[in-house]
Amino acid sequence: MSAITTTAAALDTRQRLLASTSELIEGGSYGSVSVQAICEHAEVNKGSFYYYFPSKQDLVLAMIDSAWEETVADVLEPVLTASTPIQDRILRLYECMYDDQRTHKRTFGKATGCTFGSLAAETSTLDEPIRARLSIVFEEWVGHLDRALRQAVKDKELNSSLDPKATAWVLLAGLEGLLLLSKTADDPAILRKSGQQLVHMVLDPVEL
Amino acid sequence: MSAITTTAAALDTRQRLLASTSELIEGGSYGSVSVQAICEHAEVNKGSFYYYFPSKQDLVLAMIDSAWEETVADVLEPVLTASTPIQDRILRLYECMYDDQRTHKRTFGKATGCTFGSLAAETSTLDEPIRARLSIVFEEWVGHLDRALRQAVKDKELNSSLDPKATAWVLLAGLEGLLLLSKTADDPAILRKSGQQLVHMVLDPVEL
Repeated sequence: MSAITTTAAALDTRQRLLASTSELIEGGSYGSVSVQAICEHAEVNKGSFYYYFPSKQDLVLAMIDSAWEETVADVLEPVLTASTPIQDRILRLYECMYDDQRTHKRTFGKATGCTFGSLAAETSTLDEPIRARLSIVFEEWVGHLDRALRQAVKDKELNSSLDPKATAWVLLAGLEGLLLLSKTADDPAILRKSGQQLVHMVLDPVEL
Repeated sequence: MSAITTTAAALDTRQRLLASTSELIEGGSYGSVSVQAICEHAEVNKGSFYYYFPSKQDLVLAMIDSAWEETVADVLEPVLTASTPIQDRILRLYECMYDDQRTHKRTFGKATGCTFGSLAAETSTLDEPIRARLSIVFEEWVGHLDRALRQAVKDKELNSSLDPKATAWVLLAGLEGLLLLSKTADDPAILRKSGQQLVHMVLDPVEL
């Protein structure tokens, strides 16, 4: 086996472990998913698991990093830096999350909510490294929103009295809260309907 | 032992089990708390536990009912039906939740978030009876907000263009989202600062 093939196989094993963890936690919880179940789902033996990750905690930290990179690259960057009005961009962000919930409901039979939010709600009082990592994820998320809002104020798309950072926290809280309420009701429509309402209430366009 | 004393003792045992469950889940999670740990914390033997509750699930359902009754009686009813302006009442509701988080942080050393929200995030894809019960809790919560907003529109405190039900979902989502973000950051100040911002953005008082 050449060095390149070894690396590709290793990457594949690691990626399979990350993907299985994400899928199993989404359909269950951190506590309900065992290393054994992850290995079976990923078709990886336990020896290989412990070669890549010393513990379930380490695997979940790597899964958070991987899911966050994907969220930034696939959703936040393209949606928030598009050349459309700021209100449309924020609505699009909420819409992407709604589409995601609809897909999950079709695939798993349930609205699964936000992986970061669900993990944070379950583990923040139990697991300090996971709490700290998720806290950074949410701060970075606020950073992405803040930059887009700040630019929109500069471009006179939004009123100069708007506080971009505080508004970014409100928009993220609204999104996480609606994802949680949709998961609890098993109904993504809550996110869609109330999300539009929230964005319109928070981001009044400047009267021209 | 008289019948009255027996009943009082039984009530006490049941109440101790409910209080211990609430406290242990708040400081941990549904999955991390065993029947054994609850019995030890409540100083109740396992035989008595199973006399009152057939399973951990039944105990948690009873705990949700009890915590919800308490939230309605101690917070929602008095705060939302007070004879102060609607914006002040909603701000007071957010402030009560903030005070609660500060107390938890002082008592347990951590911001513990919302018991209903944390349980919902962890169990909704795993436990259908608990998900269904929490879904009713959130619907009733929206009902309390909706009635207060509806009356405020009627009293011309809020603009007649405001949709009370949709606004109620937005206010609950904002509260649950901020409780989650505060728990993750272990910082109740997020709820305080962004909560005030959100309420002001959502509930613009009618221009007179």
